[in-house]
Amino acid sequence: MEQVLRKLAKEYQDLNGAEFTRIEGRYIQDSDWPRWQHIGRPVLIDDYFTFGEDEGWTDAWLREVFGSIPLSIAVTPDGAADALKEHSDGRTYFVEPLTEQQDITSFLASFGQDDATHQEVRYLQSQNGNIYNSSIPITELHALRQHIPLHVPFVHHSLGVEPDAVNLWIGDKRSVTSLHSDPYENIYHVIRGVKHFTLFPPTETCFFPDHEYPHATYTRTEAGLQLTPSDPAQHPPVRWLSFDPDNPPEGTRPLFITVRGGQTLYLPAGWNHHVRQAGLGEQGQGVCVALNWWYDVQMEGMTWVWLAFLRKGIRYLENEEEGRRD
Amino acid sequence: MEQVLRKLAKEYQDLNGAEFTRIEGRYIQDSDWPRWQHIGRPVLIDDYFTFGEDEGWTDAWLREVFGSIPLSIAVTPDGAADALKEHSDGRTYFVEPLTEQQDITSFLASFGQDDATHQEVRYLQSQNGNIYNSSIPITELHALRQHIPLHVPFVHHSLGVEPDAVNLWIGDKRSVTSLHSDPYENIYHVIRGVKHFTLFPPTETCFFPDHEYPHATYTRTEAGLQLTPSDPAQHPPVRWLSFDPDNPPEGTRPLFITVRGGQTLYLPAGWNHHVRQAGLGEQGQGVCVALNWWYDVQMEGMTWVWLAFLRKGIRYLENEEEGRRD
Ligand SMILES: O=C(O)CCC(=O)C(=O)O
Ligand SMILES: O=C(O)CCC(=O)C(=O)O
Repeated sequence: MEQVLRKLAKEYQDLNGAEFTRIEGRYIQDSDWPRWQHIGRPVLIDDYFTFGEDEGWTDAWLREVFGSIPLSIAVTPDGAADALKEHSDGRTYFVEPLTEQQDITSFLASFGQDDATHQEVRYLQSQNGNIYNSSIPITELHALRQHIPLHVPFVHHSLGVEPDAVNLWIGDKRSVTSLHSDPYENIYHVIRGVKHFTLFPPTETCFFPDHEYPHATYTRTEAGLQLTPSDPAQHPPVRWLSFDPDNPPEGTRPLFITVRGGQTLYLPAGWNHHVRQAGLGEQGQGVCVALNWWYDVQMEGMTWVWLAFLRKGIRYLENEEEGRRD
Repeated sequence: MEQVLRKLAKEYQDLNGAEFTRIEGRYIQDSDWPRWQHIGRPVLIDDYFTFGEDEGWTDAWLREVFGSIPLSIAVTPDGAADALKEHSDGRTYFVEPLTEQQDITSFLASFGQDDATHQEVRYLQSQNGNIYNSSIPITELHALRQHIPLHVPFVHHSLGVEPDAVNLWIGDKRSVTSLHSDPYENIYHVIRGVKHFTLFPPTETCFFPDHEYPHATYTRTEAGLQLTPSDPAQHPPVRWLSFDPDNPPEGTRPLFITVRGGQTLYLPAGWNHHVRQAGLGEQGQGVCVALNWWYDVQMEGMTWVWLAFLRKGIRYLENEEEGRRD
């Protein structure tokens, strides 16, 4: 079975190389999106969305839009939220961030400072459809809805469906999103700063060691943030890939795509992605602001079946319920 | 491995049922074809093509178009061309038909007769792009080109490519095409009569026993057509599925689609198909006339890799060169 998976990965590489398509937004035609979805490879789009060009989504503008609304902010000691971490007890945990409510002004003030009180890393990344969520009417960042399109026109045109979720992301270069895949077609648009995506096709999932890790969260104590193992009865272990970006496993062929302000990435469902970011300062300081639209992957046809097969890999025949992080 | 293939087939069935899409040709939009291709399930289209409506492609019209051009006709004792057959030596062969040249008048005269001289079954089915073939300039049925579109507009619009081949098929109810799959996106259009397709998705290939069979052809002798084993040095054994249409293997879920005059079937690459046909007479006598456009399957993305995996099944890791029938 492992040999089968590796051969599939190899044949996929031989056919597809390490290329991706880049296109100017104004040249997108009605038939492009379903074709991209069929091919299932990343596409980098320039200047498709024009919202945000006038207001620039500056700190001042964001403060005006959000006022004193409490925002859910992920807090970690080092910028690694939803990531593997070795604890002082010697075990490795899958650690979720502490979530704290904060208004936009104090949240933005946490960036680019270097005094001791700001050594924690904050990332607005709630990933629950904080702007729009198809299953709840009012969301935390509702106030942004009037400033952005709630769907991606080229997707909407062809599928006629609404996105499952629209998310805002605000963070700085200290925050990193660890390697994972999602069961969504992802349209990821950067407004300020840059995002660095390291991508591996679904066929290459088999090259990454994956294990179940006990669950933990960061909690706030008098001594600061502390990694706190969860009650296993409440939080079953989480299966997660381990990946060192400086050392991709042999056999993989990573695709590196940098998405800059004004650019939009189509990241097909099932692609493994590791994401770094930076602001526009000379040393990458300042915030990166991005938006994404998640569309449920189509259940018709083969896509869902294949992605499940490749994600589960050598465990495909086991009947385990997957502890997804949602 | 076998268990993996069967689970893939089961999950595919659970997600897709035994349904297919049907649409009126005039409602086809630019984004439909790439979406159909992505989903990879059959689509039955009504009244898309209007060519042939005036002339009706009657026997008289066909005689006028082809005049005395010699046509390559497949001749078999029983209508089973490219099929498994038990020989009097006790072995089962993969048998190709005898090909004879005949003009359209004598070819058409072979149908609907019941005297002894017409007990052989004739089928115009050369499958080599007899109307149009992207790699040769002049083809046997060149004369038809001015009467049909040489590409399918809804495919051409989105892929911008030419078909690999366009074929004419003329036969009657005695001719049956045995179960197989092709590495082509197939647009199959019926002009006169009906075609009965029995279809199995690529995921169900694993349920069919397949073996290598020695090659044979029919040859003409004084005693009539005779099954003649080929020289194995010239014709390596052929791997072929065995399939009894009255008895589909357990675990499969056949899709039955009847395509009538004026209807067009999109048959996605890799789908296994078994095809029967009939004329419009009360007992199905008379000829069935059909056309099809074959488009090479897209190599980009995963389709090719998956189809190869599913076609080879438990032999995926073997390095055998496949003896394709082309
Ligand atoms: O921007 C990030 O940090 C991660 C984005 C991501 O994982 C996603 O959009 O699925
Ligand atoms: O019409 C037939 O007899 C067979 C058609 C077929 O096999 C094809 O179009 O691939």
